[in-house]
Amino acid sequence: MVDLNADLGERFGLWPMGDDAAMLAVVDRANVACGFHAGDAATMIDTCTEAARRGVMVGAHVGYRDLAGFGRRDMAYAPRELTAETLYQIGALEACARRAGAAVSYVKPHGALYNRIAWDRPQAEAVFDGLPEGMPIMLLAGCEATEWARERGIEVIEEAFIDRAYTAQGRLMSRSQPGAVLHDPEAAVAQAVAFARGESITSVDGQAVSVRADSLCVHGDNPAAVELARRVAERLDALGLR
Amino acid sequence: MVDLNADLGERFGLWPMGDDAAMLAVVDRANVACGFHAGDAATMIDTCTEAARRGVMVGAHVGYRDLAGFGRRDMAYAPRELTAETLYQIGALEACARRAGAAVSYVKPHGALYNRIAWDRPQAEAVFDGLPEGMPIMLLAGCEATEWARERGIEVIEEAFIDRAYTAQGRLMSRSQPGAVLHDPEAAVAQAVAFARGESITSVDGQAVSVRADSLCVHGDNPAAVELARRVAERLDALGLR
Amino acid sequence: MVDLNADLGERFGLWPMGDDAAMLAVVDRANVACGFHAGDAATMIDTCTEAARRGVMVGAHVGYRDLAGFGRRDMAYAPRELTAETLYQIGALEACARRAGAAVSYVKPHGALYNRIAWDRPQAEAVFDGLPEGMPIMLLAGCEATEWARERGIEVIEEAFIDRAYTAQGRLMSRSQPGAVLHDPEAAVAQAVAFARGESITSVDGQAVSVRADSLCVHGDNPAAVELARRVAERLDALGLR
Amino acid sequence: MVDLNADLGERFGLWPMGDDAAMLAVVDRANVACGFHAGDAATMIDTCTEAARRGVMVGAHVGYRDLAGFGRRDMAYAPRELTAETLYQIGALEACARRAGAAVSYVKPHGALYNRIAWDRPQAEAVFDGLPEGMPIMLLAGCEATEWARERGIEVIEEAFIDRAYTAQGRLMSRSQPGAVLHDPEAAVAQAVAFARGESITSVDGQAVSVRADSLCVHGDNPAAVELARRVAERLDALGLR
Repeated sequence: MVDLNADLGERFGLWPMGDDAAMLAVVDRANVACGFHAGDAATMIDTCTEAARRGVMVGAHVGYRDLAGFGRRDMAYAPRELTAETLYQIGALEACARRAGAAVSYVKPHGALYNRIAWDRPQAEAVFDGLPEGMPIMLLAGCEATEWARERGIEVIEEAFIDRAYTAQGRLMSRSQPGAVLHDPEAAVAQAVAFARGESITSVDGQAVSVRADSLCVHGDNPAAVELARRVAERLDALGLR
Repeated sequence: MVDLNADLGERFGLWPMGDDAAMLAVVDRANVACGFHAGDAATMIDTCTEAARRGVMVGAHVGYRDLAGFGRRDMAYAPRELTAETLYQIGALEACARRAGAAVSYVKPHGALYNRIAWDRPQAEAVFDGLPEGMPIMLLAGCEATEWARERGIEVIEEAFIDRAYTAQGRLMSRSQPGAVLHDPEAAVAQAVAFARGESITSVDGQAVSVRADSLCVHGDNPAAVELARRVAERLDALGLR
Repeated sequence: MVDLNADLGERFGLWPMGDDAAMLAVVDRANVACGFHAGDAATMIDTCTEAARRGVMVGAHVGYRDLAGFGRRDMAYAPRELTAETLYQIGALEACARRAGAAVSYVKPHGALYNRIAWDRPQAEAVFDGLPEGMPIMLLAGCEATEWARERGIEVIEEAFIDRAYTAQGRLMSRSQPGAVLHDPEAAVAQAVAFARGESITSVDGQAVSVRADSLCVHGDNPAAVELARRVAERLDALGLR
Repeated sequence: MVDLNADLGERFGLWPMGDDAAMLAVVDRANVACGFHAGDAATMIDTCTEAARRGVMVGAHVGYRDLAGFGRRDMAYAPRELTAETLYQIGALEACARRAGAAVSYVKPHGALYNRIAWDRPQAEAVFDGLPEGMPIMLLAGCEATEWARERGIEVIEEAFIDRAYTAQGRLMSRSQPGAVLHDPEAAVAQAVAFARGESITSVDGQAVSVRADSLCVHGDNPAAVELARRVAERLDALGLR
C-alpha cells in the first residue's frame, strides 16, 4: 500500500507553476511550498483550502531561502538558522492551513535541502530540530537520514519515485546519469505497482532490488506528467493498492 | 495604568538593529518583527526566548513585505494578500514563540502599515481578517481603526507615544511638522505619567487634551532613547502606574 | 507613424511569463525587466540577445523593488532611493545588453511606477534624475510627466494602448471602470491605425479625441494577445504606418 | 609595494555595517557591495562618491544572491547564472560609479564566492566569463584561480590578509582552525610589512614562507580593526611601501 504526493502551491506572486487543480484531484498528500523557495501566503491559503475540500493531506514543503534558484541550489546553512527557518515555515503554513480548515500533518524538505539532508547529518539534525513534537517527515526512501530520524523517534514517510531509475543498491540514480528517468509511462506505472505491493523493482542494470516506499511522488509540471499521475492513481485504485 | 512596549527583533541576518537586551529589561511588551520588514527566523526565536525569560509579552509586529524600506514605505496592497501575509507572519511567530516557551498575545502592525490602517478601512479590515480568533490588536490611540476593530469585537490596545506631540484634537503630529518630537526627557516623562493616570496632556498648541492610552511606545535605537525608556519605567513604577 | 513595444524578459528564475519569442518577432521595442519587479540576470541577457538578433530596440523597464507584487503596487519611495534604483537598473541592463551586442536606447517605467509618475512630480523627477545623459523615456501619452520631462530637455516617447478606452479628455480609462478594455480585436486594430495616422480616436463616450502616440503597447501574456499584436503589426505594415 | 583594500558599502536599507568613512580615509581600494549579498543602490552611489572624493579606487564586490546569509554561505550556482549575475552586478556598480565621477577598476568576488572560486574551476570560469574586457580581478593570493585567470589573459590582483595565519605551504588557514587569526596588532603590522617588501612571512608552524601580495585586506567592522588598519597604513607609508 502506498499513497501519492505532489509538490504544490509553487506559484509566486503573478508567476504560475504547475497544474495544482489537476493534481489535487489525484494525490493523497499536497506538499505545500511555504514561501522560502516558492509559494506566497495567499497561494498557501488557497492550496490548503482546495486540499481540505478534496480531503488531501497538507504537508509543509520547507526549503532553502532561495526564490531565484527555486530552492534547488545546494546551500551551506548554519544548523541554527536551518532549524529556525524550518520551524518558521511550518508555523506559517500551520496558520494558513488552520484558516483553510486543514492542518499540517507532515513535513517534506524541498529540492536541494531534500537531497542534502539525505547524507549531511548536521543539516538533517537541524531540520529535525525544527519539527514540532510528533510531526512526521517525508524523506528519500532508503537514505541515511531515515535512520537518523528514527533514532530520534521521528516517524518517517519513505518516498519513492515512479519515473526514476534506481541502482542495484536501491539508490535513486542522479538525473545527470543516462537512463535516470523512465520515459515509458507503462514502465513507470509498473514500478509504482511494485512499490505499492512491496515487491522488488528492476534496477537500471537489470537486477531485482527492493525499495521500501510509503508514498510515491508524482509531478504536475506538464500535461504528460499530470496524465501519468492519473494513470498511476487509477491503476493503484483498480488493484486496491492505495 | 499603562504598560510599555517596544519594537524588537529587528536584526536581519548579520545586520544589527537596536539594543534589544536593554529594552527587554525595561518593557512589558515586545513587538517582534516577523521577517517581512525586518527580523529573521533565528532572531525571532532568540527574541521570544529572552522575552519569555524576562516575563515580557510577545506581540507579532507584522509589516509590509519590504526589507529594503524597512516596512516604512506606504504600499497599495490587495486586501486578500494583506490578510494572507498577516496570518502568515503571525503563524510564523507563533511557532517561534512556542519553541521559546512563549505565546503571541497580541498583534501590532508596523510602520507604514500601522499608519495606513489608521485611516484606510479596506487595509484595516484586511489586517483584521488575518487575526486569529480572539487576538487583540495594538493601534494608534484614537484612530478610526480602533472603532472598526471594536465593531468586529476585536480587543484594541491603544498606543500612545511618550516623546511625540499631539494636536488639540488628540491626534499624533506628523514627524514632518516642527515640534512633533519632544526633545526634553522630562517633558516625555511627564506626558507618560499623564497618559498613565488618564489625565489630559498638553497639546502642541498648549491646550489640555485627553488621549486614552493602554500602552506606551518606547524606543531602543540609540543610548538616549534607552535611557529615556528607563526613566519612564522607573517613574511609572515609583508612582505605581504600571 | 508609430512603432510597437512590449514588456518582455519577465521570467524570474524558474517561473515563466509571457511568450517572448513570439513578441520579439512582432515588436520594434522590447521593454526588458531589470530584476526589481521581474526578470533575472540570465533572462536579461537572453532577451537582449534575441532582441539584437531580431533588430528590436532594447529599453530598460525599470520598476519598484517588489517581486511579490510584480511592481504593480503603488509605493511611497524616497526620491533619492528611486533615483539610485533607476540608474542601478539601467546600468545592470546596459551590461547585459552590451554582452548581447545591443544597447539600452530608452527607459520605460513599469507598472505602478509608470502610473504614479504620470502625476506625482517628486517621483517623476526622481526617475528623470536617474537617467543617463541623453536617454529618452517612454511615458503615458498626454500625461503631465511628459511636460516635466521635456522641461528638462529629456526626449519623450509617448505611449498609447491599442486595446484600452480613452476618455473625452484623451486620458486612459482606469481598468477598474467598465468599458476600459476594448475586447473587439477589430476595434483595437482600428484604434492602432488611427494612432499611427495621427487621426483622432473615438473616446469611451463616443467623441473624437486626439491622442499623440509615438509607440503602441502590445501584450504577449496569452495567445489572443499575441494574435492581436500580430494583426496590428500586419495592418500597420500593410498601410506603411510603421 | 602593496596597497590596502577594504569591503565597503555593506549597508542595506536602514541597517548599518562597518565604519566606511573611517576606512575610506585609510585604504587605496574600496570593494563596493553591489546589492546581492549587501549594499543598496543609494549606498553604492554614496560609497563611490566618497571614494572618488578621497581618490580611492572602486572595485565591484560581487557576491551570491543571499542577503540573509550576507553572501557567506556556499551555493551551488549554475555557471550561466553566475556569469549573468556577475556582469549584472558590475554593470549596476558601473552606473553608480559613473554618477559619482568614478569608474569600476577591478572586481573582487565576495565571501563564499571568493572562497569557492579559489578551487572550483567551473564557478571560477563563470565569474571570469562575466568580466568586461580588460577588467582585473582580485583573488586570494596563491590560489589556483590565479592561474586559471592568467591563462585567459586576465590581470590578477593577489590579495593577502594582514591578521590571518598562513600554512607552511603559503595557504591561508581556515578560520575554524586554532591560531588562524593574529590577535597581536604588532604581528599583523609586521606581516603587512613583510608582504609589502616581498619578504617571506612566518607560517603558523614557524617556517618562512613566501606569499605574493599585491593588495592587503583590512577591515572596518569594529574600532580595533579600524585602528589596526590605520597602523598598517602609517607603517607602510613611513617605510615607503605603498
